[in-house]
Amino acid sequence: MPSKEVPEIVIGRLPIYLRALTYMGQAGQRITSSQELGETLGMSSAQIRKDLSHFGEFGKQGMGYEISYLRDQLRRILHLERTWPVALVGYGDLGHALANYNGFVAESFEIVAVFDNNPDKIGQEVAGKKVQDSAKLSKVVRERGIKVAIVAVPVAAAQKVVDMLVEAGVKAILNYAPIHVSVPAGIRIQYIDPIAHLQRMMFHLE
Amino acid sequence: MPSKEVPEIVIGRLPIYLRALTYMGQAGQRITSSQELGETLGMSSAQIRKDLSHFGEFGKQGMGYEISYLRDQLRRILHLERTWPVALVGYGDLGHALANYNGFVAESFEIVAVFDNNPDKIGQEVAGKKVQDSAKLSKVVRERGIKVAIVAVPVAAAQKVVDMLVEAGVKAILNYAPIHVSVPAGIRIQYIDPIAHLQRMMFHLE
Repeated sequence: MPSKEVPEIVIGRLPIYLRALTYMGQAGQRITSSQELGETLGMSSAQIRKDLSHFGEFGKQGMGYEISYLRDQLRRILHLERTWPVALVGYGDLGHALANYNGFVAESFEIVAVFDNNPDKIGQEVAGKKVQDSAKLSKVVRERGIKVAIVAVPVAAAQKVVDMLVEAGVKAILNYAPIHVSVPAGIRIQYIDPIAHLQRMMFHLE
Repeated sequence: MPSKEVPEIVIGRLPIYLRALTYMGQAGQRITSSQELGETLGMSSAQIRKDLSHFGEFGKQGMGYEISYLRDQLRRILHLERTWPVALVGYGDLGHALANYNGFVAESFEIVAVFDNNPDKIGQEVAGKKVQDSAKLSKVVRERGIKVAIVAVPVAAAQKVVDMLVEAGVKAILNYAPIHVSVPAGIRIQYIDPIAHLQRMMFHLE
């Protein structure tokens, strides 16, 4: 599989396909097609076929895709056959919502440690875990071999927290702080940025 | 200004430039350059110059950009000189975090109405607003002329809520429900999808 050559934009669509297949499977459906997937997702069937062709042949001509098979293959390609332990840093309102969210585990992620530097928050319990002092972040991340982290701290703390995470061995970061942070080559970072999404839509409004 | 021809990916980067300029301005800086912006944002200076060139000439050769001027221009281009009233639908943990978030107003958005269909939540107060019955959504959105909405409801309710919002006159929707929803032509929708962001990063991890 020539994984090195797959465009990042294609990789970014695989989770979207995976979720659509999951919903179809949960509804009891066994077979789908690139046409149906395209209609479900507002995309062209040609785009879907082209994206999937980067990874092999998943359907038979005129037969469509077997949903459970394609789903398994996408999970394998994305390394989601295991559950990834996740560190959550920042236990404000957003951190609280993320720590309480029960949708992660079915999608191969489990928040196993929550950190904050506010003494009032340290020791609070959420979803069966105690909020820990951020001073213990490096130690816990190292000891548990955590490779994935979610950052939900204020802007002023974001770069420092990201530096600590990377230093402790984290390889993939989902950053909710509304600021660009630097990471070394080979470390993955994605941003969740509701204001940027709202603002770009206003371009089209009067 | 040939706004119709600007690629959507360029429009999507304008809020990122705007925020970087805001932080520079807050730090007391008056002048920047495409080189400095590029370093701050992990992009090439050529990309930034090319993006901005879609909208006019904002800097002088060898002089860089005046931060407050470029910021004002980007706010004008994105229609952010006004404050957009926003309806928030769904008052779970995430809706609570969004309703309490004080970062929207400075960026031209104000959540003015919060809706939920859970009788236990209706009437609760958050950030000076009472959570209202979702049954009143259409009426309130119409009366207040709300054009922007944030959807933070469960998957099963998302399409119905979006349909109601569009019917009531909403033109731009930020959807946190992890499912693709259909909107008519001319209606803008953006997705916030932490699991998709996490999953795509796992492709690169072992």
